[in-house]
Amino acid sequence: MVSLFTTDYNEILDDPEINLIVELIDDADEAYKIVTTAFKKKKSVVSANKKLIAEHLAELIFLQQEHDVSFLYEAAVCGSIPIIRNLEEYYDNDLLQSISGIVNGSTNYILTKIGEGLTYKEALLQAQQLGFAESNPKLDVEGIDAVNKLTILLAHAYGVVSKPGDLIHIGITRLQGADAGYAKEKNYEIKLTAQTIKLSNGKVAAFVLPQFIKNDSQLFNVKNEYNGVVIESKLADKQFLYGKGAGRYPTSSAVISDISALTYDYRYEYKKISRQEQYVLTHNYFLRVYVSFNDWAEVDRRDFEQVFEFHSTEERQYITGLIQVDKLRNVKWFNDPSVSIILLPQAVIEKEDVETRALKKVSLHLAGVN
Amino acid sequence: MVSLFTTDYNEILDDPEINLIVELIDDADEAYKIVTTAFKKKKSVVSANKKLIAEHLAELIFLQQEHDVSFLYEAAVCGSIPIIRNLEEYYDNDLLQSISGIVNGSTNYILTKIGEGLTYKEALLQAQQLGFAESNPKLDVEGIDAVNKLTILLAHAYGVVSKPGDLIHIGITRLQGADAGYAKEKNYEIKLTAQTIKLSNGKVAAFVLPQFIKNDSQLFNVKNEYNGVVIESKLADKQFLYGKGAGRYPTSSAVISDISALTYDYRYEYKKISRQEQYVLTHNYFLRVYVSFNDWAEVDRRDFEQVFEFHSTEERQYITGLIQVDKLRNVKWFNDPSVSIILLPQAVIEKEDVETRALKKVSLHLAGVN
Repeated sequence: MVSLFTTDYNEILDDPEINLIVELIDDADEAYKIVTTAFKKKKSVVSANKKLIAEHLAELIFLQQEHDVSFLYEAAVCGSIPIIRNLEEYYDNDLLQSISGIVNGSTNYILTKIGEGLTYKEALLQAQQLGFAESNPKLDVEGIDAVNKLTILLAHAYGVVSKPGDLIHIGITRLQGADAGYAKEKNYEIKLTAQTIKLSNGKVAAFVLPQFIKNDSQLFNVKNEYNGVVIESKLADKQFLYGKGAGRYPTSSAVISDISALTYDYRYEYKKISRQEQYVLTHNYFLRVYVSFNDWAEVDRRDFEQVFEFHSTEERQYITGLIQVDKLRNVKWFNDPSVSIILLPQAVIEKEDVETRALKKVSLHLAGVN
Repeated sequence: MVSLFTTDYNEILDDPEINLIVELIDDADEAYKIVTTAFKKKKSVVSANKKLIAEHLAELIFLQQEHDVSFLYEAAVCGSIPIIRNLEEYYDNDLLQSISGIVNGSTNYILTKIGEGLTYKEALLQAQQLGFAESNPKLDVEGIDAVNKLTILLAHAYGVVSKPGDLIHIGITRLQGADAGYAKEKNYEIKLTAQTIKLSNGKVAAFVLPQFIKNDSQLFNVKNEYNGVVIESKLADKQFLYGKGAGRYPTSSAVISDISALTYDYRYEYKKISRQEQYVLTHNYFLRVYVSFNDWAEVDRRDFEQVFEFHSTEERQYITGLIQVDKLRNVKWFNDPSVSIILLPQAVIEKEDVETRALKKVSLHLAGVN
């Protein structure tokens, strides 16, 4: 029998009368020990630790099934928004086309303030002062937190169990005043989006990248520390879920719902992982991107499948164009902190569409039309 | 053995090999026969028939439990938006504070067009031409469809099993150009809202009424035939679900999810109906309303607990003020087609707040301040 409070988690893990552990600590390595030990001791676990879950997803799915326990973690993605539960239970069939979300409140707060005229540094400082960003905000601003969440979403949306490192991601640290100016001129908002899309070849694209959002998207109005997710399905078209993505109260709300679900033995079934024709992650598709940089030497135009536009001023240059994603991951400017890479609206173009377009171009050229 | 197509529903009901009936007909009386017979024959049912469900809710809940079958009807409320499933499974605890939704696509389309400058008649005609409104649009424009949906939501949100006739409702037929003008002047949108709110005395308010919506509400941007629901919970604050509310594809989407859920024996548990302290419907609270009319003889100012403002022109007069809801239901102008009744933003005021305010007023008066 343990007393009601303890600072030694083993006291809880060793107590045979406890059958549920709620794990809400910051340290993902310690959390890993707690969660896996709990499973082995036949205790179910509720967690909000997206880093732990994303990095050990395959093992945690295996262990919970091996030990016949439930592992719920709604609070790990978009705080109070019930996105995992809905992907598991409601969008559980093959009609799901895509998910596009703002899943990180800190970066969204910073981007909102940049849109209002602050510099990146001023906005970050304000976010830290208000408690929306950690004193070490690296996980947030480099897009790592978002990619962890996307890893979790991918498993529940398409049954794709991946590692965060498998997904390409760029955060918001490279954005410059000129990029915000471009957005303003076009009446776009810049948002850090986590996206996964089922391509027509049945493979799945997934990435975390900043994107210019038009005002016809529900994501346009997701401001400050809020989160929002657009779910597209073949029949229902676009649906939108919106709410507070982080903070202790929204997190508690999701945790309480998970605990409540355990009273009737709810568990994630990961149905899509065990379906016959499994979805596979691909990087073989194209993205419509805007790339800005200081010097033409930094970015080679020949890396693009197609260039739509290029623009040059004394301070900053940009290209907009179409680029193959495997190519994008390997160009030297992909990791260059002085180069901004931002998706254009309707960013994903399938390989087939590009080939058709190229053929059309050739035939138009032959016909002398250009 | 029946053939795959039949126009006689008894062939299906009598076939012992069929264990699930999907009922998607228009006629609520015939649907009642089909659904209740199916239950008696131990067949589960998926339905989208809000009229049938709302009018026979208590009996249908009883029968499905008596015959140990599942009855799912996600498509009946907000089409593709998984609102019932989320109320059942995710917002299943006592933290749910309120639901406020645009649940009828036809009226929302008409109101959007009125906001763009069409008259009610022109907007209705356009909605009919586009197939968003029935040739007999009475159920929609008088708010009856919305009140049917609210009856269903009430059962899943708070375990309150009521009849549509228990809930007060006004549709959009009485709105006039002057009301649209008032909205424009204040930068409001007029929306037909279905709302249910848990008051601090633990009782539940529920109504369908037009409301002026400010641009700080997520409902402000729900336009045309779309539906949207704001769910407020004590910890998660406001969440918002948005999507297509009607039409064959969104309906199909919800129906397919229900069928899919039946493959793992899902059923609504109506947990909140069997909780110990049951919630009760009340009309003993106050609403902040705008009331417009042609002649001062029509509306008695003494019906209001408090008058904020009155305004008079040659064509049309209006009062804004606070009115007790039981009083509102019984004033003669409540059913007068020439009187518009529209909620102001933040419409619901609890009895206690009014009393405190009245006391404050008295004490301020005694102190000679006002």
